[in-house]
Amino acid sequence: MTGPITQSAHTPWRAVVLTLFPGAFPGLLGESLSGQALAERAWTLDCVNLRDFGLGRHRAVDDTPAGGGAGMVMRADVLGPAIDQARQSASDLPLVYLSPRGEPFTQSLAREFAGGPGLMLLAGRFEGVDERVIEARGLREISIGDYVLSGGELAAMVLIDACVRLLPGVMGQALSLQEESFEDGLLEYPQYTRPREWDGRTIPEVLLSGDHKKVAEWRRAEAERLTRERRPDIWAKRKG
Amino acid sequence: MTGPITQSAHTPWRAVVLTLFPGAFPGLLGESLSGQALAERAWTLDCVNLRDFGLGRHRAVDDTPAGGGAGMVMRADVLGPAIDQARQSASDLPLVYLSPRGEPFTQSLAREFAGGPGLMLLAGRFEGVDERVIEARGLREISIGDYVLSGGELAAMVLIDACVRLLPGVMGQALSLQEESFEDGLLEYPQYTRPREWDGRTIPEVLLSGDHKKVAEWRRAEAERLTRERRPDIWAKRKG
Repeated sequence: MTGPITQSAHTPWRAVVLTLFPGAFPGLLGESLSGQALAERAWTLDCVNLRDFGLGRHRAVDDTPAGGGAGMVMRADVLGPAIDQARQSASDLPLVYLSPRGEPFTQSLAREFAGGPGLMLLAGRFEGVDERVIEARGLREISIGDYVLSGGELAAMVLIDACVRLLPGVMGQALSLQEESFEDGLLEYPQYTRPREWDGRTIPEVLLSGDHKKVAEWRRAEAERLTRERRPDIWAKRKG
Repeated sequence: MTGPITQSAHTPWRAVVLTLFPGAFPGLLGESLSGQALAERAWTLDCVNLRDFGLGRHRAVDDTPAGGGAGMVMRADVLGPAIDQARQSASDLPLVYLSPRGEPFTQSLAREFAGGPGLMLLAGRFEGVDERVIEARGLREISIGDYVLSGGELAAMVLIDACVRLLPGVMGQALSLQEESFEDGLLEYPQYTRPREWDGRTIPEVLLSGDHKKVAEWRRAEAERLTRERRPDIWAKRKG
């Protein structure tokens, strides 16, 4: 028997996406950090084409809303079987439906999901999905922000990217994870690099002083200032 | 001379993305609604490859952070010239830097940008960009949510998708825009479609009644209930 830590080192983190646009994956997830990690099998990606579960000669996946109104709604008797079949080989993955009505996605949720076996993500289109499939299959509704997209695919990619970069070994240096936005309840401090002077602007003296304690104090103070000024809501939520 | 309304009907909405991964565009934006609108030139997409502005034999775009620490910072003397050149042919576009430190992106911001000439979007990588380029070029920092991505490209796509679907003629029926999440300060009501019974679950009777007034009342009550239960923060912000 292997414990959860040993197991996570051996079993890649899994992303399964149910979508009408499987050809758009991995897309950006195939580039850079996440792409390299995918090539090295730190995580795996499978797409389920919802069209394969469509009904009739035209493989219809949607129909008009009960009660009238604009747009189309994705059918429960299409999504249900697609989910059921996908779960046969991935019964341990949390099942998420990307929706502006959902629980807001946050960095702590990314950490939670990155620490688990992976994610199964339903990407809707049109006016959304039949409510009964959300209830019957226990879909966890998650929103990446308070705006509306033309479909859930970009939101699915956002969740996957935010999780994959947190997987062990994906980011070169773990330290850079600890110092970035949200990890300590603060926005990130300003960054500078060479050249020392650019466009008449210089790097703050303290960053060139070589005094590590003063650098750390300046960064902390800047992170606190930025958080207070830009996101009083986050500042108010901080403990202590 | 043409007024702004006439002009917007003739000039396509423009997206210009400054990125190290121009090959990942249009990606998902080339599919479905946004892809069709792109093909019909309701909007245009241009990418600027930041690598083309890299320095030296290796076309370096980043360097180590001043003051020490993990990761790499994108250089001001690479980004500045890239922005300046891109602005020569797109001086009227708002210049946005996608960053978790930014102002939260919302549906009303999407409406504002969709009503303008387009967007120029800087997608950062690594630990972010040299603060001086943000100040010197007046970049508007915008965040798609309180989580960290491996780069700004997905966030840029999110902004573009949210705006493009609001452009005149892109969505088939304008009504479906008015009834969706956030447009009236509420989350969207539950949707149902055929079949009438699925998996032992039925469509709520009122939606099958043919009584349009009752349907509208039920939907309004459900939207209010969902908003109160799930997003007390949005509920509290509503006027009236």
